[in-house]
Amino acid sequence: MSDSRSEAVTRRPMPGSEKFYVAEEAKGVRVAMRRVRLTESGDDCGRRAFVVYDTSGPYSDPACEIDVRRGLERIREPWIDARRDTERSGTARGLTEPPPGEARLAAAAPALRAKGGRAVTQLHYARRGEITPEMEYVAIRENQQLDEMRRLFPELARRHRGSARGAALPPDGVTPAFVRDEIAAGRAILPCNINHPESEPMIIGRNFLVKVNANIGSSAVSSSIEDEVEKAVWACRWGADTIMDLSTGPDIHETREWILRNSPVPVGTVPIYEALERVGGRAEDLSWELMREVLVEQAEQGVDYFTLHAGVLLRYIPLTANRLTGIVSRGGSIMAKWCLAHHRENFLYTHFEELCELMRSYDVAFSLGDGLRPGSIADANDAAQFAELETLGELTRIARREEVQVMIEGPGHVPMQLIEENVHRELEECLEAPFYTLGPLTTDIAPGYDHIASAIGAAQIGWYGTSMLCYVTPKEHLGLPDKDDVRQGVIAYKIAAHAADLAKGHPAAQLRDNVLSQARFEFRWRDQFHLSLDPETAERFHDQTLPADGAKRAHFCSMCGPRFCSMQITQEVRDYAAKRAIGEHDAISAGLDEKAAEFRAAREDVVECS
Amino acid sequence: MSDSRSEAVTRRPMPGSEKFYVAEEAKGVRVAMRRVRLTESGDDCGRRAFVVYDTSGPYSDPACEIDVRRGLERIREPWIDARRDTERSGTARGLTEPPPGEARLAAAAPALRAKGGRAVTQLHYARRGEITPEMEYVAIRENQQLDEMRRLFPELARRHRGSARGAALPPDGVTPAFVRDEIAAGRAILPCNINHPESEPMIIGRNFLVKVNANIGSSAVSSSIEDEVEKAVWACRWGADTIMDLSTGPDIHETREWILRNSPVPVGTVPIYEALERVGGRAEDLSWELMREVLVEQAEQGVDYFTLHAGVLLRYIPLTANRLTGIVSRGGSIMAKWCLAHHRENFLYTHFEELCELMRSYDVAFSLGDGLRPGSIADANDAAQFAELETLGELTRIARREEVQVMIEGPGHVPMQLIEENVHRELEECLEAPFYTLGPLTTDIAPGYDHIASAIGAAQIGWYGTSMLCYVTPKEHLGLPDKDDVRQGVIAYKIAAHAADLAKGHPAAQLRDNVLSQARFEFRWRDQFHLSLDPETAERFHDQTLPADGAKRAHFCSMCGPRFCSMQITQEVRDYAAKRAIGEHDAISAGLDEKAAEFRAAREDVVECS
Repeated sequence: MSDSRSEAVTRRPMPGSEKFYVAEEAKGVRVAMRRVRLTESGDDCGRRAFVVYDTSGPYSDPACEIDVRRGLERIREPWIDARRDTERSGTARGLTEPPPGEARLAAAAPALRAKGGRAVTQLHYARRGEITPEMEYVAIRENQQLDEMRRLFPELARRHRGSARGAALPPDGVTPAFVRDEIAAGRAILPCNINHPESEPMIIGRNFLVKVNANIGSSAVSSSIEDEVEKAVWACRWGADTIMDLSTGPDIHETREWILRNSPVPVGTVPIYEALERVGGRAEDLSWELMREVLVEQAEQGVDYFTLHAGVLLRYIPLTANRLTGIVSRGGSIMAKWCLAHHRENFLYTHFEELCELMRSYDVAFSLGDGLRPGSIADANDAAQFAELETLGELTRIARREEVQVMIEGPGHVPMQLIEENVHRELEECLEAPFYTLGPLTTDIAPGYDHIASAIGAAQIGWYGTSMLCYVTPKEHLGLPDKDDVRQGVIAYKIAAHAADLAKGHPAAQLRDNVLSQARFEFRWRDQFHLSLDPETAERFHDQTLPADGAKRAHFCSMCGPRFCSMQITQEVRDYAAKRAIGEHDAISAGLDEKAAEFRAAREDVVECS
Repeated sequence: MSDSRSEAVTRRPMPGSEKFYVAEEAKGVRVAMRRVRLTESGDDCGRRAFVVYDTSGPYSDPACEIDVRRGLERIREPWIDARRDTERSGTARGLTEPPPGEARLAAAAPALRAKGGRAVTQLHYARRGEITPEMEYVAIRENQQLDEMRRLFPELARRHRGSARGAALPPDGVTPAFVRDEIAAGRAILPCNINHPESEPMIIGRNFLVKVNANIGSSAVSSSIEDEVEKAVWACRWGADTIMDLSTGPDIHETREWILRNSPVPVGTVPIYEALERVGGRAEDLSWELMREVLVEQAEQGVDYFTLHAGVLLRYIPLTANRLTGIVSRGGSIMAKWCLAHHRENFLYTHFEELCELMRSYDVAFSLGDGLRPGSIADANDAAQFAELETLGELTRIARREEVQVMIEGPGHVPMQLIEENVHRELEECLEAPFYTLGPLTTDIAPGYDHIASAIGAAQIGWYGTSMLCYVTPKEHLGLPDKDDVRQGVIAYKIAAHAADLAKGHPAAQLRDNVLSQARFEFRWRDQFHLSLDPETAERFHDQTLPADGAKRAHFCSMCGPRFCSMQITQEVRDYAAKRAIGEHDAISAGLDEKAAEFRAAREDVVECS
């Protein structure tokens, strides 16, 4: 039974690719990457492979054994133990009963917390000048073997169009010291709860690759453990760098446990949802004490970042009264309701120091929620939104002092001409803390296609300096995303993030485009598919018009047919020029009538299916 | 048989909408528009309707009779006749035989051309200070009943976030005189061949709505007339403002005739494709004489604009030698091959004055092709591309002198940070002629999703001042688009164009977002669907999780469920404030403890499925 069930979790490797690991033995670090094997044709590509950043975890490595009931290997455990700054918290994990018919997770390890209230955060270590194994891991991971790739593709590596707007990329690649310094400055966070040792370290900051978050989560009770884990695995397979579990319902705790034990990426939550469940949905009945209980439980489960709407202040709520679409953040509206009902200040704001103390004991990062973000183009960049942002800046200062990692959430719905202001204000108000935005959607008139309406804004805001983009699926505003929606959403956002990396001048990003474009130009169809963000879809689309295997080696495609293939004609022109050693300038100017005649005589038919 | 066949052409009206006509009786102008009927709920929306720009032609009007063998009503014929500057050309239309089993089109009208070599172009009339019925039509069409909409939605019309980057929108709406002046200045074109009187006038210019082109075209021989017409009708239904017929193959002439007689939007072609067919695919065998023959035939059929790669000069070809992906424009590579083979200058360049004389006799507009556009991120904005652009500027000057309308084609593949330069250079080099770009794709690594990778670039370039965006479908680089791909491509580009209109500050664009957002906030689900770009998809997605008809009136959706609906909570907060007449500032500050208690006592359960 266990075997057949495990098939519910996607295990196949990405087409044409293999997982491999870059090890830094001395540090005990072994970084997972993916290698795309290139075919042999093409002048410049012997039997080579191109390395890409990989978020899929052990699932895409056939050599790894996976048992979702045991969870993933706890790769960070030795690093955490070695620091000797944690102890068992005494709380046992897996508090709730699993749904009927579902086995409990095997042998939940006891939760850890910091000894004696100290900070066990990456920010704390970075400030002390330490380079942790997590930082080492991130440095290797971000570089994607760039030096090696430059050696393999020297000509393609030179073709680089980047500028550095929105970022200050290190010219010699990402070093562990650079990672440390960015974290120490608060410009980047490395979300890694000590109770989520299964996650592969990653970094969120604007001088690194732009990251993508995918929201998952059930509201139903009926899912099996495999189904829940599969949602996370599926999102990571297509490139999600973190996931947020937004589950609601009675099994919320158990579901989260399943996800955390099996997630290779950091997991975020919005803890107010669970708190609200516990008070039967009555926002007025929430309290700091209850919230604290929920936060401790989630921290001990291993949640890596909490979205907390601590900036929704009582006095800001009236600023939303004349909005077209009021408050559209769920957490924001819950807090607003509580504030109004009690006529008291937001308890997350008034207990912020306590919050910090709690979170630094586990290294849970703040994702300071934008509870007053605009819900329509009409409400973008308004007084309510920017008032809250100012308060988030105030809270960032406190968190920094308390050595808790912080990122700042952003909108939402913003027309293109108002996007840049969001980034500039955020960097200024919030001391350059990483910005993490939802979209933004650049128009409201595209329900059913909001992944596209928002990918437009996401690409721009990423370029301007946003560190992580929260995806939007085609079902946004309409319904619950299914698996295909998750894929569509993640890929749309990988496009946006990658377009931003290119525009920021990231050398590894540009190299991937160049390697793929060369494959395209040389009619290496399989390489083109395998280097793409979604090789399966690319190949399927190609096969719809030219399914024959021979067509994969054809020097044309179904769009133009052999006669009209511009790439084929260009190759002919180029070959002709090369054969006769025609340089860039003397080529034409020196009178080529004779050669032109030769060319006319010598031309071969354009159709060539080698 | 004719009846069952006609069903192959999509005739159903858009959901929740009706076609109507704004008439300017004195001028003989009757402008088609679409009215979205809003439901009765909602404070601000009695029994109202919202007007949207409509490109679907008579097909979406059940009152219109359609017979694809007769073609559409020739609405512009009386205007053309009244000018008395044309005569019968003497050439009969429909030169080629229809495919076996297909009836020829009924009664093709004889072709017209200008009397005595004079210009019959909208540019010519505009320069003389004339306002043609075509210009009247465009002015009404562009305004989308804005004054009426402002009167119906006064509160929503005031919510306007626009800036005017990339455009100088007329503050009082588009007047016929403004249309004329923009055309006279060459900043806009109104493509309307005198032999395509079926088309509904539209304008392409950066001070008007951003337009979208969809490429259609068969390479197969087997299509029926209904199938070919349906491709055009389908693209227009989703919002294509013009279509380009890129058909190749032996029936190219007959297919084009079918499309033109039944197309409500201007039709563009790349005539070199037909010329190449006539010389058996041997680019070297092309000649100006042959090309001229093709151009006259297409002009007499009614093609509204020609893509002509007249700027691919012999001396620019070597500039592409070191590119990663050479020449990727089909037309560009054909001309390059001809130039190299003959070692002579591009015959379209050397005969440009003759070209102008020909085109002004029919009012065919130039779409000056960018034969050397980049085919990859690595090649963007390079010397070859910008050298050609300079030549296009030179040609624009000649065309202006000869009173031929001109737009300029642009890339292609451009990373975000290099997009703006394209617009600025084009405006400068080409005397502000409308820019018409393909995408651009902002990354090369997304085959299968290039409609998204390019919609990102299209939205930006539209905002910066591009007048028309040529769509890209998900099949780009992989295969031939099917009907669903056409829909996906058109909608992605309508999003990009609309996002650009918003960012440029177009008041009608903003109002549509506001009306939809209000419907969303008030849980008027059907209004939300009907106001969207693709009502069918929006409703289908909603129904996947909440199919019951009652759910269309529910005050929540499946994403959050009743308990977590922020919009519902916001409504409660707002209602509460309103009931107690709490203003924006005194609301909270004056001590509301007592009212808070009342609120707690009075609250109703959040769930409310009215």
